[in-house]
Amino acid sequence: MSFNQNRRTFIRNTSLVTLSLSLPIEKIQALAAPSTDKVRVGMIGVGLRGQEHVRLMAAREDVTIIAMADPDKTMMATAQNIIAKAGKNKAVEFTNGNHDYKNLLARNDIDAVIIATPWEWHIPQAIDAMSAGKIPGVEVCGAIHLQDCWDVVNKSEQTKIPVMMLENVCYRRDVMAVLNMVRKGMFGELLHLQGGYEHDLRGVKFNDGITPYNSGVEFGAKGYSEAKWRTQHSVDRNGELYPTHGLGPVATMIDINRGNRLTKLSSIATKSRGLHRYIVNHPKGGANHPNAKVQFKLGDIVTTQIQTANGETIVLTHDTSSPRPYNLGFRVQGTNGIWQDTHAGEFNAGMIYFEDKSKPHTWENTEKYMKEHDHPLWKKYEQQAEGAGHGGMDWFVDNAFIECIKRKAPFPLDVYDLATWYAITPLSEKSIAEGGSLQTIPDFTKGQWKNRKPIFCVGQEEY
Amino acid sequence: MSFNQNRRTFIRNTSLVTLSLSLPIEKIQALAAPSTDKVRVGMIGVGLRGQEHVRLMAAREDVTIIAMADPDKTMMATAQNIIAKAGKNKAVEFTNGNHDYKNLLARNDIDAVIIATPWEWHIPQAIDAMSAGKIPGVEVCGAIHLQDCWDVVNKSEQTKIPVMMLENVCYRRDVMAVLNMVRKGMFGELLHLQGGYEHDLRGVKFNDGITPYNSGVEFGAKGYSEAKWRTQHSVDRNGELYPTHGLGPVATMIDINRGNRLTKLSSIATKSRGLHRYIVNHPKGGANHPNAKVQFKLGDIVTTQIQTANGETIVLTHDTSSPRPYNLGFRVQGTNGIWQDTHAGEFNAGMIYFEDKSKPHTWENTEKYMKEHDHPLWKKYEQQAEGAGHGGMDWFVDNAFIECIKRKAPFPLDVYDLATWYAITPLSEKSIAEGGSLQTIPDFTKGQWKNRKPIFCVGQEEY
Repeated sequence: MSFNQNRRTFIRNTSLVTLSLSLPIEKIQALAAPSTDKVRVGMIGVGLRGQEHVRLMAAREDVTIIAMADPDKTMMATAQNIIAKAGKNKAVEFTNGNHDYKNLLARNDIDAVIIATPWEWHIPQAIDAMSAGKIPGVEVCGAIHLQDCWDVVNKSEQTKIPVMMLENVCYRRDVMAVLNMVRKGMFGELLHLQGGYEHDLRGVKFNDGITPYNSGVEFGAKGYSEAKWRTQHSVDRNGELYPTHGLGPVATMIDINRGNRLTKLSSIATKSRGLHRYIVNHPKGGANHPNAKVQFKLGDIVTTQIQTANGETIVLTHDTSSPRPYNLGFRVQGTNGIWQDTHAGEFNAGMIYFEDKSKPHTWENTEKYMKEHDHPLWKKYEQQAEGAGHGGMDWFVDNAFIECIKRKAPFPLDVYDLATWYAITPLSEKSIAEGGSLQTIPDFTKGQWKNRKPIFCVGQEEY
Repeated sequence: MSFNQNRRTFIRNTSLVTLSLSLPIEKIQALAAPSTDKVRVGMIGVGLRGQEHVRLMAAREDVTIIAMADPDKTMMATAQNIIAKAGKNKAVEFTNGNHDYKNLLARNDIDAVIIATPWEWHIPQAIDAMSAGKIPGVEVCGAIHLQDCWDVVNKSEQTKIPVMMLENVCYRRDVMAVLNMVRKGMFGELLHLQGGYEHDLRGVKFNDGITPYNSGVEFGAKGYSEAKWRTQHSVDRNGELYPTHGLGPVATMIDINRGNRLTKLSSIATKSRGLHRYIVNHPKGGANHPNAKVQFKLGDIVTTQIQTANGETIVLTHDTSSPRPYNLGFRVQGTNGIWQDTHAGEFNAGMIYFEDKSKPHTWENTEKYMKEHDHPLWKKYEQQAEGAGHGGMDWFVDNAFIECIKRKAPFPLDVYDLATWYAITPLSEKSIAEGGSLQTIPDFTKGQWKNRKPIFCVGQEEY
């Protein structure tokens, strides 16, 4: 696809989608059989996260990595090595500062870009990509300003270029098994959902400036990898800074933006202790280390209550500055059953209960149900996904991005999902700043949610 | 103690407490050695819950049950049987309607009363008890109106008669072991706490009018025991109706009303589905049963976010209308560790993690820690508590009530705790009615929280 073909294709595709709202999903899928063999991809951001996308894209026969942009030449070299190891051609490099990605976007041999940059760049770069006729796949985070969410939606609507929200946890194997059980009606009517980002990131937010993890107490200019930019958000902001891993999976289960929508939230935050304590207690830190003077604004644990149009409630927890085992804290509860996730996605590590199946008032281990209701997509692509990042789920989200482009099919996680999920961050910051006040979550679909049908893992066999 | 002695005693006791605010706790305890051998008790409400208190009081050599009030003659007969089986003298009965308890209160041979009546009676009866010079021990629930909380505080301050909040879960063995670990500093500085009442009560809210549990779909006039009165609250009210089991234990850990206080809350509720569904699906119910027409106002899951003066946050969950295993959902998280409760208080059924003890990023089973830090009170009184209600914790809460009266010592859970915890209910109702708005939690101590010292299980060896 050239740039112009690409735009025409998506104009056609968009009108097809609009037309097909009244058609059953199967019809849409039939119409959307693959018509493009090869997707020409540009990578924007090839740091440690971006390199996983490079690895996945380089391994695919239906993708050519044309170019990559990143101001960090060391990261760029590593990314080129990944491509070389996969036996693919070297990508064109754009490493001339933060804005050189615009030259990548100006090329006419790129169909789509994957954006895996520091948070503040996601939406500006997605918008620039659409302006240049490229389809952006955008990594997770929260918005910096609420207006950013409107801007990305408006740009997509104006250009008719779709955007994919690359939320990998929607494809976590246990999460998809639970989605499968939800779709089969095993939980009854859903009522209450929880999720979060409960991950001790202290050893990521700080390092020694040379190696990325658990190596020191530096950040910002003296830090390396994520510590270079991510930690500053903990200095400047107090809110649900990373909502999508917790929210995305449960949003797909209750059809957010597709028959349902998020309406209101309020957030509260604990005092901020963990990051300062980490610096002071670290062998390379101490009370006299300059970073011991830094005031961190981010509360150690941020809780957000969300209401929906269809009467479910959601609780999100952001917990990244305290010592704790990793757990996204999922809970899916309906009129007939409840699942609680306690670990990191292992099939046998949660608790589950169904009124019509379990011994009364007694938790069951999840393993039996997870195996029995393993999602067809995982069964089919288990081997391809093996070795991909985050237990294989990264393969699925990148696969969906490429397969949809090839088929000219709507993305299962789209620009409205991106805007809605990203919006949690600035709204939660405002809520906390106002003492926990109630905030209205905008309807980025402008009423379309009432007629849009669920498409995440509905009917498709390929993504 | 006679009524007049009793009033004088407590006036003295109160001034002693006021005086002793600047004294170390050990001094207070030394001054508060037992000076009364026998406490003369009246029971107000001897239904299924009250009968457990009757059993515990009848078993004690330091208590005489003088009289009992309950309009239900069957329940009264059962309560008298309990006393007889314990080899104690029959109690004087007051069964002449809902207000006959006032005649019990008018007696001059009763020192204290235990109030275990339907929720709406707790505060009026506690106030009447104080007016009659009796010390009330009050069962758990939430207030009907916020003003009730002020009324009970004002009455106690005016009469100088103390009130004990009979929150048994504060004495649950694992909860007390965790409190012990909190006090030893093992969790570091506390940050975030969770609790709730997550208990499938459908088989309690409805029965056949003859047996209490899981026997039918009747309630109100046609119901039996709790179904007679408790269920109507689910028809009329939408809020955190039963806050104290979840809140009380975590409140003692962060010194609420004693160096800290609750400041604000907001609540959200899911749609209401579970109770209607239960009626419709029950073999004795069905879509044509008259109760299938009842509209239940109570959302199936109610979530409440609470903020504190010292910067901790609390999340409460009320979840009593859905199929699920019992779990109060405790979480205690500090700068150095986290505990998550997943079952019903079994020592080996939770997850725990301490930065300085656990394998990095890995949950440990709780059993080792629970055993090692088993609270001294439990070690000492394990045998006495054995067989008492709710795994023994009922023995401890009733023991505290009696021992404090004997020693003229301040109650570990007092009228300010009662008012603060009960207040969550009307405030959460208001929040939900206003779409999830932020509510201010009154300071019932009127500033005393700044100087009051923690006394729950501090220093005492007996309660």
